[in-house]
Amino acid sequence: MGAPTDLPSLLEHEAIKALKYAYFRCLDQKRWDEMFELFVPDGAVASYSGGKYRYEGREAIVEFMRTNMDRPGFHSSHRVHHPEITLLDDTAATATWAMDDVNVDSEFDFFLTGAGFYEDRYRKHEGRWLIEATGYRRTFETIRPLSASGTRLTASWWSTDGQSRLDVR
Amino acid sequence: MGAPTDLPSLLEHEAIKALKYAYFRCLDQKRWDEMFELFVPDGAVASYSGGKYRYEGREAIVEFMRTNMDRPGFHSSHRVHHPEITLLDDTAATATWAMDDVNVDSEFDFFLTGAGFYEDRYRKHEGRWLIEATGYRRTFETIRPLSASGTRLTASWWSTDGQSRLDVR
Amino acid sequence: MGAPTDLPSLLEHEAIKALKYAYFRCLDQKRWDEMFELFVPDGAVASYSGGKYRYEGREAIVEFMRTNMDRPGFHSSHRVHHPEITLLDDTAATATWAMDDVNVDSEFDFFLTGAGFYEDRYRKHEGRWLIEATGYRRTFETIRPLSASGTRLTASWWSTDGQSRLDVR
Repeated sequence: MGAPTDLPSLLEHEAIKALKYAYFRCLDQKRWDEMFELFVPDGAVASYSGGKYRYEGREAIVEFMRTNMDRPGFHSSHRVHHPEITLLDDTAATATWAMDDVNVDSEFDFFLTGAGFYEDRYRKHEGRWLIEATGYRRTFETIRPLSASGTRLTASWWSTDGQSRLDVR
Repeated sequence: MGAPTDLPSLLEHEAIKALKYAYFRCLDQKRWDEMFELFVPDGAVASYSGGKYRYEGREAIVEFMRTNMDRPGFHSSHRVHHPEITLLDDTAATATWAMDDVNVDSEFDFFLTGAGFYEDRYRKHEGRWLIEATGYRRTFETIRPLSASGTRLTASWWSTDGQSRLDVR
Repeated sequence: MGAPTDLPSLLEHEAIKALKYAYFRCLDQKRWDEMFELFVPDGAVASYSGGKYRYEGREAIVEFMRTNMDRPGFHSSHRVHHPEITLLDDTAATATWAMDDVNVDSEFDFFLTGAGFYEDRYRKHEGRWLIEATGYRRTFETIRPLSASGTRLTASWWSTDGQSRLDVR
């Protein structure tokens, strides 16, 4: 089941997890330049949503993100869980992760909830783990309108400085 | 608070986490035969939803899952977090986990959101950690109709090959 | 990226994670006395919701929680993910965490979904890691009425003993 069996492999697992966590922080905080540095320089592949959105090369991958997710009306939270990591050799590893995501789009008026599983491949490049291939297949995805369901956006990283408009006692 | 204090206990924690992660991958991907192998051969107990759904023996536990969750119209994402693991001796351990789950049922037209805490017991059997007792108590559970709330299913592991029907730029 | 590079730092990371997990178990189970013990005795600071809700001293922090979250009609699930921990020295550390939360309030009739990032500081006090400063900035927060959206509460830690009112086969 992929659990590490000694200290060196445990530390490699931790380094790979740190890479994945940085990826999602960059995604949800729209840090595209830092995101770019998390992929291998050559031959990176992303295959999102069961392969429907497929890009080759870190330039194309990050351009896809920027085009679709840079708008301040687009808010996302992507979370990954349950890592099952396999070290193939000193510079190659694969992993499966459970994922869930919420998108709140105040411009295009929708609330999206989804879940799925990532299948990744990582390569150690100049002493640092980087993403070589990443992609997920969805378990489900649902979408509903914000306004018609009576949902209000009460905080936004971009439009309210991350503060809620709700009051507490 | 249960954090490991040396390498051997740390590696046992990792092995127990891998077991739990495999359980939820099998649950949400409907891998019942693989799920069966994650329980101890004799005396496994599952006590879900504050004990309302209680089953003894891995045959009964997995049969419950198959009966209720095998339909392709039933989509689930169960995620666990915040493990607090206690090693009792070389072959026994307990753990508390925070859990949240979403069920999207396109056949019976509901969207369920829940949260709770698992209390588990594990046993090392022939060198491998297995589930001896598992169960959760809910913090909350809510349900709403899909159609009446304007919610559409736009991706499914089973009916759309895990691809979204939504388009991106 | 903050991954540990040796066993001692790895064990410190695990101890810090255990502290954070206990915090959220206490929060969602309304264990205020146990929560109080997780903060440093002097000078603790909490700065929630981008600094909108700010409290100094563990007495004030826990009083804020008790005032706003002790009601049995208030149900919450707060989950943290993606820890990026930095050990500053033997007794000081910082961390970034991704967070998501759901609040279900059957008394005031709302369902809240949010996400954000925590920035914490920890101090080792008498051999035990404690929270010195904690706070999050929201990526987004949304709220909708329960009743008007057709959402029913079907389980509660406090009013149904954590059992679902839904039946299975």
